Amino acid sequence: MPQASVDRRFHSPQLEAFVARALAAVGLPQSDAGQIAQLMIRADLRGADGHGIFRLPQYVRRIRAGGMNVTPNIRIARETEATAVVDGDNAMGHLALRFAARVAMEKAARAGIGWIGVRNSNHAGPAALYAMMPLEKNMVGIYLAVGNANHMPPWGGVELLLSTNPIAVAIPALEEQPIVLDMATSVAAYGKVKTKLLRGEPMPEGWMVDALGKPLTDPKRAADGFLLPIGDYKGYGLALVFGLLAGTLNGAAFGRDVIDFNKDDTTPTNTGQVIVALDVARFSPVDAFKRSVDRVIREMKDSKKMSGVERIRVPGEQSHATFVERSAAGVPINATLLKDLERLASELGIEGLS
Amino acid sequence: MPQASVDRRFHSPQLEAFVARALAAVGLPQSDAGQIAQLMIRADLRGADGHGIFRLPQYVRRIRAGGMNVTPNIRIARETEATAVVDGDNAMGHLALRFAARVAMEKAARAGIGWIGVRNSNHAGPAALYAMMPLEKNMVGIYLAVGNANHMPPWGGVELLLSTNPIAVAIPALEEQPIVLDMATSVAAYGKVKTKLLRGEPMPEGWMVDALGKPLTDPKRAADGFLLPIGDYKGYGLALVFGLLAGTLNGAAFGRDVIDFNKDDTTPTNTGQVIVALDVARFSPVDAFKRSVDRVIREMKDSKKMSGVERIRVPGEQSHATFVERSAAGVPINATLLKDLERLASELGIEGLS
Repeated sequence: MPQASVDRRFHSPQLEAFVARALAAVGLPQSDAGQIAQLMIRADLRGADGHGIFRLPQYVRRIRAGGMNVTPNIRIARETEATAVVDGDNAMGHLALRFAARVAMEKAARAGIGWIGVRNSNHAGPAALYAMMPLEKNMVGIYLAVGNANHMPPWGGVELLLSTNPIAVAIPALEEQPIVLDMATSVAAYGKVKTKLLRGEPMPEGWMVDALGKPLTDPKRAADGFLLPIGDYKGYGLALVFGLLAGTLNGAAFGRDVIDFNKDDTTPTNTGQVIVALDVARFSPVDAFKRSVDRVIREMKDSKKMSGVERIRVPGEQSHATFVERSAAGVPINATLLKDLERLASELGIEGLS
Repeated sequence: MPQASVDRRFHSPQLEAFVARALAAVGLPQSDAGQIAQLMIRADLRGADGHGIFRLPQYVRRIRAGGMNVTPNIRIARETEATAVVDGDNAMGHLALRFAARVAMEKAARAGIGWIGVRNSNHAGPAALYAMMPLEKNMVGIYLAVGNANHMPPWGGVELLLSTNPIAVAIPALEEQPIVLDMATSVAAYGKVKTKLLRGEPMPEGWMVDALGKPLTDPKRAADGFLLPIGDYKGYGLALVFGLLAGTLNGAAFGRDVIDFNKDDTTPTNTGQVIVALDVARFSPVDAFKRSVDRVIREMKDSKKMSGVERIRVPGEQSHATFVERSAAGVPINATLLKDLERLASELGIEGLS
């Protein structure tokens, strides 16, 4: 997205209030609107710019087109001591996942683990948001999702049957920040392609290929090609099994069923996700475990660097640094997005951002 | 390994009987020896040549050096309705994991899921063997492990602090074969490097780099370099979180603690693994789910191929084809390995293979 120099900074309470106003204006109950706003802006604070307030115009468009349910009855459709299927009733994904994460933690507190599948959900923002929820209870969090648009073929194919189905894993530490892995199973997430397009920059080789398997580096030609999975057939395998676990197993869409939410605002997406909470105390004494995680983190970070490398990071470190910086200095909003948000405000007849 | 032309074929019962004789000769109870032999040869039948009978001389050497316990008391150290930590008492990994997989399935039958961490275990062969065990109960199986030698640095580093920590996921289908993903988090498993060395072939670029980050393609120089993770920092992240979940969380070794079982025959490895069983029936009607998996498999396989590609596969397809072929025609054993096994037989004073 545009240069930092032209970005304006907004503090998170201001952004949250704006998002909540917009969602309330299209019919969401005040408290739901507030909770979604908080999660969306948390995405921005952590640097997941493609998953936060940037999505608001699209969400509003979808809600107004009748594609999402603003007064859903999110409920447990099936459950055992340690598992459940949550039916999101076509709610915004943030609400369905927040509900599911709570169920996961309650079950984990009793049974050691809660594995919750979600169906009839929607896009919920960055995977890390939900994987991190169990951390406060000294639990490990795992999140899997079927992405909301297919951008990958099976390995060797050219038809777009797979999304960049992500995984997030959050593991608590003691003095160090928690490990928070959040990754697409493609080399680049599709949002990165959009960013290159906005910036007018070519993509590096390895992100996409065309239907002949040739490297595709011009982001304007993105529709002629597809994203490459990490590790070739391995990333394809991960996208496939994550999709079966997050989608098919819960009665949610996967494969050809997936609705491209960029092109279709009205058909329910029946998005599927999984959230797992695993209670550390049932495996190891909590402090001893967290101390061991600290040790592993330090082992990695303090180990010998390859020549030319400034620092070794652990997953989540960069996002945490961004969170700290943006919590203090505000979230940068670029001029294009700001204009979109102001237009949205005037359409909805709500108070704008600036 | 050597050309197929010089390989001799042996039927699996003959190989199993030989492995069982060898293990019994070094002190394992007959029934344990038989069960391990069956799992080891199942690896060979499925084409995991580096994880089957090929490992027998190393296992025997380790047992004779006192590095593994031949009469272990494998037990549940902690448990909840849905989780457990299994202490392998330094058993051969096959026994510890077979025990843990049973516990996982029992818990899943009652609570919907069983997540079993294992410590004080050892190398157990291919991940797929254990992930596949829950299939017979219409359960999904997931397996994670800390590898038994560190071959990867953290991303940007040069110290070998990570193994190629694998994941396997097995998902039942109806008329199609189950999906069985079994993959290292490195581009190439270390066994593939050894194979290139034996064959005198160079490695493709992308498998390994040297300490300056330059491609390393000569397998004779493997000790000067390290394996690359899939998707760069993403594979590093996966290896790290799988290691924390399979190792650290269960009180097993991870990071600098990992014993290189190729170089050290006596120190207990304290290998950590995780086996998860997830009961499909608690999420979806079993037949409907399996039919949906069939549909997804066919969608992938029947989709349009990239020009030059003969067929699109799903994970586990190749291994299953090898299993069918080798079950009928026997397992190929190359001349070098056969000589090693004959030497072993004479050392142990047991009947040989041929």
